[in-house]
Amino acid sequence: MGGLRGNIVIGQSGGPTHVINQSLVGIVEAALVAAPGSRVLGALHGIKGVLEERFVDLGRESRETLEAVAQTPGAALRSVRKKPTREECERALQVFTKHDVHCFFYIGGNDSAETAHLLNELAVAAGYDLRLFHVPKTIDNDLRVTDHSPGYGSAARYVALSFLGDNVDVRSLPGVKLNVVMGRNAGWLTAASVLARQHDDDGPHLIYLPERPFSIERFVSDVAEVQQRLGRCICAISEGVRDESGALIASSKETDSHGNVQLSGSGALGDRLASALKAGLGDKLRVRADTFGYAQRSFPGVASPVDASEARAVGRAAAQFALSGDSQHGSIAIVRTSNAPYSVRYERVELRLVARDTRPMDSELIRGHNDVAPAFVEYVRPLVGELPRNARLSDFSA
Amino acid sequence: MGGLRGNIVIGQSGGPTHVINQSLVGIVEAALVAAPGSRVLGALHGIKGVLEERFVDLGRESRETLEAVAQTPGAALRSVRKKPTREECERALQVFTKHDVHCFFYIGGNDSAETAHLLNELAVAAGYDLRLFHVPKTIDNDLRVTDHSPGYGSAARYVALSFLGDNVDVRSLPGVKLNVVMGRNAGWLTAASVLARQHDDDGPHLIYLPERPFSIERFVSDVAEVQQRLGRCICAISEGVRDESGALIASSKETDSHGNVQLSGSGALGDRLASALKAGLGDKLRVRADTFGYAQRSFPGVASPVDASEARAVGRAAAQFALSGDSQHGSIAIVRTSNAPYSVRYERVELRLVARDTRPMDSELIRGHNDVAPAFVEYVRPLVGELPRNARLSDFSA
Repeated sequence: MGGLRGNIVIGQSGGPTHVINQSLVGIVEAALVAAPGSRVLGALHGIKGVLEERFVDLGRESRETLEAVAQTPGAALRSVRKKPTREECERALQVFTKHDVHCFFYIGGNDSAETAHLLNELAVAAGYDLRLFHVPKTIDNDLRVTDHSPGYGSAARYVALSFLGDNVDVRSLPGVKLNVVMGRNAGWLTAASVLARQHDDDGPHLIYLPERPFSIERFVSDVAEVQQRLGRCICAISEGVRDESGALIASSKETDSHGNVQLSGSGALGDRLASALKAGLGDKLRVRADTFGYAQRSFPGVASPVDASEARAVGRAAAQFALSGDSQHGSIAIVRTSNAPYSVRYERVELRLVARDTRPMDSELIRGHNDVAPAFVEYVRPLVGELPRNARLSDFSA
Repeated sequence: MGGLRGNIVIGQSGGPTHVINQSLVGIVEAALVAAPGSRVLGALHGIKGVLEERFVDLGRESRETLEAVAQTPGAALRSVRKKPTREECERALQVFTKHDVHCFFYIGGNDSAETAHLLNELAVAAGYDLRLFHVPKTIDNDLRVTDHSPGYGSAARYVALSFLGDNVDVRSLPGVKLNVVMGRNAGWLTAASVLARQHDDDGPHLIYLPERPFSIERFVSDVAEVQQRLGRCICAISEGVRDESGALIASSKETDSHGNVQLSGSGALGDRLASALKAGLGDKLRVRADTFGYAQRSFPGVASPVDASEARAVGRAAAQFALSGDSQHGSIAIVRTSNAPYSVRYERVELRLVARDTRPMDSELIRGHNDVAPAFVEYVRPLVGELPRNARLSDFSA
C-alpha cells in the first residue's frame, strides 16, 4: 500500500455530539501531515454530500478556525440520517473516481459503520483502491467492541448535571420527578444519572433501562415505596423502555431509513408515566416529567475533558492507520488499559464488527430491574470527569 | 427603631433558582455583622416551617459551608408554594413571639411578596414589632418595579445556551425544532433565546411570547415561511402562550394554592404544536419539540456571574435596610443606572408594589407577533454575560 495517492473525503453522519468536531479536526490534522500531497475534503451532510458532490476544502482552514470548530458542538460538516442503497454506493464510488478520492472517513454510529461497510465491500468487489475508516461517535454508547464511544462521556455529563440540579430542586419542592433520557437501544446514557448520587438520600432513586422489561404497574409501586420513605422520588427512565413483549412503552409512527423509531423530541412517554402515577397514587401527588431533549448532545460547555481529547485522538488514530498504509479499512476502538489511573489505547477493528448491531449494557452493570451496579459507576466515572458538589447546610437534621 | 432586639428568621419560597442561595447567604453575612446579638434562623420550607416551628441555626454555619451553599442551585432551606390564610399569618406571629423573632426575610417571587405583605399588615395591626423584607427572586423576571429579578439572568443563560446548541444541532440535521420555555405570565425567559443568534441564519427564527395572542394557524404559516427560506426553523415558545380569548394553548387542571396552573413538567404544548405542524405541512417534515424542564432553574454551572453577584448583593441590601433601622419593611429593587458599562444600585420599595401582580414584557421590547425588539437584546445581554461562540468552517458557502 504505502503512501496515499489522490484525495481524502471526510463525512459526519447521524446525531451530532458535543465532540464530533474534535474527531473531524483530529482527522484533518493528521491527514495534512501524513498525506501532504492530498486534498482533504469535507462532504456536506455525509454520504448525501458525496452523492451530490458537495465538498468543502478543509485544507484551507486556519488552525485557529479548526480549533474553534473542534470545541463547537454539532456537526460542522452537517450530518445526515441516510442508509444508501446499493446503487447509491456505486454512485459514490463514481464520485470518488471523478474527484480522485482514495480515502474516506465516516464519523458516525452503528448505522454509519454499516454504510461504511457496504461501501467498502463494493469498493473491494470493484477493485477500487479505497482506504475507508469508520470513526466512532454516539452519545448512546451502544457501539460494539469499543470500551465506550466518543460523544458518550459528554452527553453522560449533561445527564449527570441535570440530575444534580433535580436533586436540589426536588428537595426544595418535594414530589415525584420523572426524567426521560435518550438511548433508543441501550441504557448507557440513562444509567449515567447515577453519578448525581452524592448524599445518601439523593436521586436518581430509580433507574429504568431498556435492558430490563418495564411494567407500568411495578413502576407505580416502586415510586410509591420511595415516595413513602423519602417524601420525594427522582426517576431516570430510558426513552427505549419496553414491556415484557418487547413493545416500546412510548411509541410513534415516524421512522428513519434505518428503521429507527422516533422517540426524542416528544413528551409522550413522560406524560404517559406521569398520568399512570396520578391514576395509581392519587391526583394530589406532585408529579413532573421532563423529557431531556437535544441539549443532551449539544448543550455548550459541558464537554467532558476526557471525551473531548479521546474524540480528537480517535480521529487522529483513524487517519494514522489509514495513511500509514498499515491497513486499508476498519473502525477505531478505544481499549481501556487501566481504570486507576484511567488510561486507554486505540485499536483498529474490522468494520463488520461495529456495523449495524448495537450493544446493550452488560448484565453485570445492572442491578435488579431499577438500578445500576457499582461496576457501572466505576466504568462511567472517568468518562464524565469531576462534577460540582451540591452543598447542604450542615445543621439540617433540625 | 435603631438596633434590632430579638432574633431573625429567613425563609425561601416558590420555585428555586440558580442563585437563590446567594441571597440567603447575603442576608446571613450582613445580619451576623449588623445584629451580632441576634440568632439568625432559617425556616424550613418557608412559611410552612415558621408555622411548624422548624428552624435551623444559620449562625452556626462555617464561612466555607455558606460559600459552598451560595454556589449550589436549589433552595438550601427548602421551599414551599403556600399562600397562608389570615389564621396562619396570626399563628406565624405567635411563633415569632414565642421565639423572640422581630425580623423576617422572605426570599421569593410575587406570591411570596404577597405573603410578606399580608404578614406585615397583620403585624402592624397587632402592634407587633416586626421588620419584614421580601427579597426578590424569580427566573420568570415578572416582578414589578425592579429592573430585573435575581435568578433571571442565570435561567436566561441556560435558555440562550440551549438555543446555541440547537443552532448547531438543527443545522446538522435540518428540520423544525420547537422549544417550549418556562414563564407562565410573561415572556422574559423565552425572549432570552434571542441571544443565540450569532450568525445571520441562526435561530430562534420565531419567538412567541404570552404578551401577544397566539394563533396555531398563523404559527403554522410562520414556520412554513422560515422552513421554505432556510430549510430549517427553530422556534422559542413560551409555555404561557394564549389565544385571542386569553385561554392557554396548553392547559392542565392542576393548580397551586395561589391559583397558578401547572404548565411545566409536561410535554403537552410542544406535542400539540408539533402535531399541528405535521397536519398543516405534511407528515414528512421533521419536527421535534423539546419542553425545557427544571434544568432552566437548576442546571449546575450556568449561573451568570452578574446574576450571582446581584443575588448576593440583594440579600445583603435587604439585611442592611432592615437592620440599620432605616426602614421597617419593604422589598429590594435593582435599579439599572447605566447599560454601558453596566451598573446597578439597590433600592427599598414598598411591599404592596411587588406583591401579587406580575409584570409582562414592555411593548417596546417586542416586535410584531413573533420576535423581540433590539431594545430587549440590549436589556438582557449584560444580565446573561458572555456566551461561547459557535464556530463554523469558513469555506462553507460551497
